[in-house]
Amino acid sequence: MPRYPGLLFDLDGTLVDSVYQHVLAWHEAMREQGIELSVWRIHRRIGMSGGLFLDALARELGREITTEQAQRLRARHMEGFLSRAGEVQALPGACALLERLSEYGVPWAIATSGRRVTAEIGLNLLGIGPDAKVVTRDDVEHAKPDPDLFLAAAERLNIDASSCFVVGDSVWDLLAAQRARALGVGVLSGGYGREELDDAGAYRVYDDPGDLLEHLDEVGVRRRGV
Amino acid sequence: MPRYPGLLFDLDGTLVDSVYQHVLAWHEAMREQGIELSVWRIHRRIGMSGGLFLDALARELGREITTEQAQRLRARHMEGFLSRAGEVQALPGACALLERLSEYGVPWAIATSGRRVTAEIGLNLLGIGPDAKVVTRDDVEHAKPDPDLFLAAAERLNIDASSCFVVGDSVWDLLAAQRARALGVGVLSGGYGREELDDAGAYRVYDDPGDLLEHLDEVGVRRRGV
Repeated sequence: MPRYPGLLFDLDGTLVDSVYQHVLAWHEAMREQGIELSVWRIHRRIGMSGGLFLDALARELGREITTEQAQRLRARHMEGFLSRAGEVQALPGACALLERLSEYGVPWAIATSGRRVTAEIGLNLLGIGPDAKVVTRDDVEHAKPDPDLFLAAAERLNIDASSCFVVGDSVWDLLAAQRARALGVGVLSGGYGREELDDAGAYRVYDDPGDLLEHLDEVGVRRRGV
Repeated sequence: MPRYPGLLFDLDGTLVDSVYQHVLAWHEAMREQGIELSVWRIHRRIGMSGGLFLDALARELGREITTEQAQRLRARHMEGFLSRAGEVQALPGACALLERLSEYGVPWAIATSGRRVTAEIGLNLLGIGPDAKVVTRDDVEHAKPDPDLFLAAAERLNIDASSCFVVGDSVWDLLAAQRARALGVGVLSGGYGREELDDAGAYRVYDDPGDLLEHLDEVGVRRRGV
């Protein structure tokens, strides 16, 4: 194990305050298609692969979602989210946390189940330039809770995933972290409860990126060479 | 103890799928006033008294909210919620549950921390007429987690609150239930996690009103005279 772990971050709900806008964009897209699903059930599926999301939806509805319907849902969700993008902000401490890690020489990357075009909104709010290591749904075959996104992000850092921490707000992040043999750290800023994240295998749970920044010692992050 | 308990229902997140719209309406109102609070922190305060909400907000911001600012926030929240009212629906099983209770001769009432004008949206979706027993923030001195709303609702049913079940989606409902000496039943449809509701004293937790309807036997609700 290298002495300095890498940090792999989820984006929505973890670094950017965008979960509730995603939730209502999905809700709106579904209602347009005559699909009635309670908002909290959508919330609990945010962050998982879009394909699995639609499989789960089909099960809850008790009927199949056609390929055409799935495409239409995805397209309308994206439009709905982009129309709400003005409400989205970086989470407290997110920028400072990434800056601190860079200053400490601790490698970090971002791994999101979202597509590049929606992820750009968050990346811009974080002031993340083209040099940053970012893996999106477009780069891997399977999104969370499959481990592909975090494995790819660790590879970009040239660190084995088992030496990395995964920081995420959803149970899908924490399940994917376990499958990638990484340690999972939860944040409450996506709206899940602390116990849900604990139960999904979180090693620690913090309020938001700012709270994690104040407790970096607890996850063993230190300035390189100290 | 009477053999047939009364049921006291919260409204938003318990019978009506309106929590996320309330959350984003508050978020928008705050941003207009230059107040930056993460969306999940607002979510966790929904359902509590507006006054306590603003006290909690002041603490988290580390500065006072003036009376004028509080009035402006409340007014803009109400406008923002009313503008989103078209997205709001009754929760699955809510209407059927209330009908079943009426059919069984089981007394029920609604007790909401919201004002009458915003509650009307939910009451209309539920098809609740003027004869139904509904207590709103306008009728009591203190809203949840004070017990006043549930005590007043029980009084309208002429049943002691200690013989009632309170059904709610938030920890504020469950704390108010305990203070009213009523048994609390949680529902997940407001977006809290199961364990949060358990920890706040829920005697049982169901997914939503439809799930409660399917398990009425578990809370001891039966047809009057059977």
